[in-house]
Amino acid sequence: MGTESLAEQIEGMGRRARAAARALALCSADAKNAALQAMADALEASTDGILAENAKDVSAAAVHGLNAAAIDRLRLTPERITAMAKGVREVADLPDPTGGVIREWTRPNGMKISKIRVPIGVVGIIYESRPNVTADAAVLCLKSGNACILRGGKESIHSNVAIAQALSEGAKNAGLSVDVIQLVPFTDREGVRLLAQMDRYLDMIVPRGGHALIEAVVEHARMPVIKHYHGVCHVYVDRGADLAMAERIAVNAKCQRPGVCNTMETLLVHRDVAETFLPAVAAALWERGVELRGDVRTREVLGAKVAEAVEADWTAEYLDLILSIRVVDSLEEAIDHIEHYGSHHSDAIVTGDEASARRFLAAVDSAAVFWNVSTRFSDGGEFGFGAEIGISTDKLHARGPMGLEELTTYKYLVTGDGQVRG
Amino acid sequence: MGTESLAEQIEGMGRRARAAARALALCSADAKNAALQAMADALEASTDGILAENAKDVSAAAVHGLNAAAIDRLRLTPERITAMAKGVREVADLPDPTGGVIREWTRPNGMKISKIRVPIGVVGIIYESRPNVTADAAVLCLKSGNACILRGGKESIHSNVAIAQALSEGAKNAGLSVDVIQLVPFTDREGVRLLAQMDRYLDMIVPRGGHALIEAVVEHARMPVIKHYHGVCHVYVDRGADLAMAERIAVNAKCQRPGVCNTMETLLVHRDVAETFLPAVAAALWERGVELRGDVRTREVLGAKVAEAVEADWTAEYLDLILSIRVVDSLEEAIDHIEHYGSHHSDAIVTGDEASARRFLAAVDSAAVFWNVSTRFSDGGEFGFGAEIGISTDKLHARGPMGLEELTTYKYLVTGDGQVRG
Repeated sequence: MGTESLAEQIEGMGRRARAAARALALCSADAKNAALQAMADALEASTDGILAENAKDVSAAAVHGLNAAAIDRLRLTPERITAMAKGVREVADLPDPTGGVIREWTRPNGMKISKIRVPIGVVGIIYESRPNVTADAAVLCLKSGNACILRGGKESIHSNVAIAQALSEGAKNAGLSVDVIQLVPFTDREGVRLLAQMDRYLDMIVPRGGHALIEAVVEHARMPVIKHYHGVCHVYVDRGADLAMAERIAVNAKCQRPGVCNTMETLLVHRDVAETFLPAVAAALWERGVELRGDVRTREVLGAKVAEAVEADWTAEYLDLILSIRVVDSLEEAIDHIEHYGSHHSDAIVTGDEASARRFLAAVDSAAVFWNVSTRFSDGGEFGFGAEIGISTDKLHARGPMGLEELTTYKYLVTGDGQVRG
Repeated sequence: MGTESLAEQIEGMGRRARAAARALALCSADAKNAALQAMADALEASTDGILAENAKDVSAAAVHGLNAAAIDRLRLTPERITAMAKGVREVADLPDPTGGVIREWTRPNGMKISKIRVPIGVVGIIYESRPNVTADAAVLCLKSGNACILRGGKESIHSNVAIAQALSEGAKNAGLSVDVIQLVPFTDREGVRLLAQMDRYLDMIVPRGGHALIEAVVEHARMPVIKHYHGVCHVYVDRGADLAMAERIAVNAKCQRPGVCNTMETLLVHRDVAETFLPAVAAALWERGVELRGDVRTREVLGAKVAEAVEADWTAEYLDLILSIRVVDSLEEAIDHIEHYGSHHSDAIVTGDEASARRFLAAVDSAAVFWNVSTRFSDGGEFGFGAEIGISTDKLHARGPMGLEELTTYKYLVTGDGQVRG
């Protein structure tokens, strides 16, 4: 082991993952669910070991420059491990996303075609977040019949290794290969490149993290990448809006959880309602500590307490209690703004005018478009998917909230009685 | 124009395609169908010009090293242009693949979620084949609401430019932007790299061609690639097979059109039926001029007329009247062979034993798996898709025969009455 190069280690993981995936794809739903239960048990049984490893990460957190909030998210407790195990058991209770018939038809020559859901194979997940993601991602992959290779960030490497080991142990206890879940035990950036180039073994790669991480994956990837990128989400308050509703939605979209991707970063307001709406919404936002940055017309209404928004503000994902505001002349100008500056993630219109709403929903090319609903609902849980691997900002294969079904692909089974082509 | 660099030209095409795609995505089915009719008319009206340009390609064909069959495929005639226009009108008659509701549900909080089909945006298609592909690809993209940027091979560049120009004219005559269809008017390999890197404007890229072309795209691509790669397709004759049916299927899968990707390249035969089946199928194949290459046990039965198959034969896509044959001890050995050497395109089992068939269909990880049906049916037309952009050898987004629906993605429309997240 010690003499293996990084490349050889990654290659070995890929080869073992492929073999594990072949077997896993043929497992019954019951076998996979039994494994998930065993994985939850193993997590709980490994609580002491996981906590000891987590303590190493927490000690190193200051060195990694983590602030108090980030350290809190990093820190595991017995309760948090119990919650993690509970999450695993909840996934076991979800319907199996594979095996179902998507469509079935018979051709005039008598051959019957079934398009059925099957696992993708081997999924690579590269992330920079709380250690919980290790369990969430591994478990969703297993439920959907995929082997996974995980590569987490350096801040939680000890916790991640311990969690992945417990999950592998659980899988083994239920009779599956330990290789259904593998975690890259080092965090060199080189490992990202090696994974991204290994299209021989990896069928898909999912980067979740900052710009540099995603760029490194996109730059090198030879297999499909499903990016979980930033959300520059808009709420557009139309002239036909119920302004009390618009205020509730704007405040919710900005303040309910400002650090996540489906939060509003820019508020667009139709000029006809700007003078009425802006003072009301600004008061509500200021009360919650939000810093406002506006265009000229916004500042004409709200005054100098609003900073001047510069070009960079329109593309910024603040992930903080900061909001840019722009007054627009028309619905079309709002749509153009969103198409020009947005990230095609989640955008909302507030209006009582159905024609305007329909135009907005059709013309805004985002994964999720909302009419009189807060963008904060762009979420697998809120959509009713039961579990979420994230929110895809890509358009192909998976778009928007990505649940178990988005971890599957399909194949065609064709049966007949000797049909040959004439 | 003359002073623009290649990079600037490609960038300009991308920018114009994006603008055209935004408008096209909002066109009604009727508007798109009217454009398709106008495009068919324009093709017919441009017959003389297209034939004149095609004559230049045909004159240069010998320089490009094309053989007589390839030159025949390259050559256009008034009848072939009429057939091309007829193909365009047939696509107009197909159902619109966009706008439909994939799934619709209401959440407990009253918000209604609709998952609807929408165009992908801008599709790049890179190909090395007959000029007909120019019309086929452009028309399928337009029908599905996508702008396209086409880049054909040097052998048919003059024909391609003339055809694309006629199609653009037709689009313009029907009130659409000429930029819904653009063709790169030069064939430098550098153009492939520039297109593959232009993820700002291209949402998807589809390479159809040889290994070098596809490798160039995969190497550089920053957007999803849907490869149309080779088919190393197998027919496995199980010990439970009806041997007369197996012979018909094997002969059809090899001989009906040997130069295409869904043709059989390797025949696997269970040892229990080898002595009966091999002489019969060999006689039928030899009669049709097929060269056989076999493993040791095949040659023990068929003798020295069968050349020895070497390792490279098992991964070869002959695209010719050549077949490799191997005798296997079991169904599992057949499955392992296919997984090890195959290209996950289309593979068939011939058997009367349902348990063996089910095992084969489940365990072989190919886009299309056939039971008692020739692999030659792995085709959009034969599957009833009405039109085909090709056969994807990728697993994500589109797998196997790829029709109009595979040129769409989805978005979520969420409507409510002021829902905010608690």
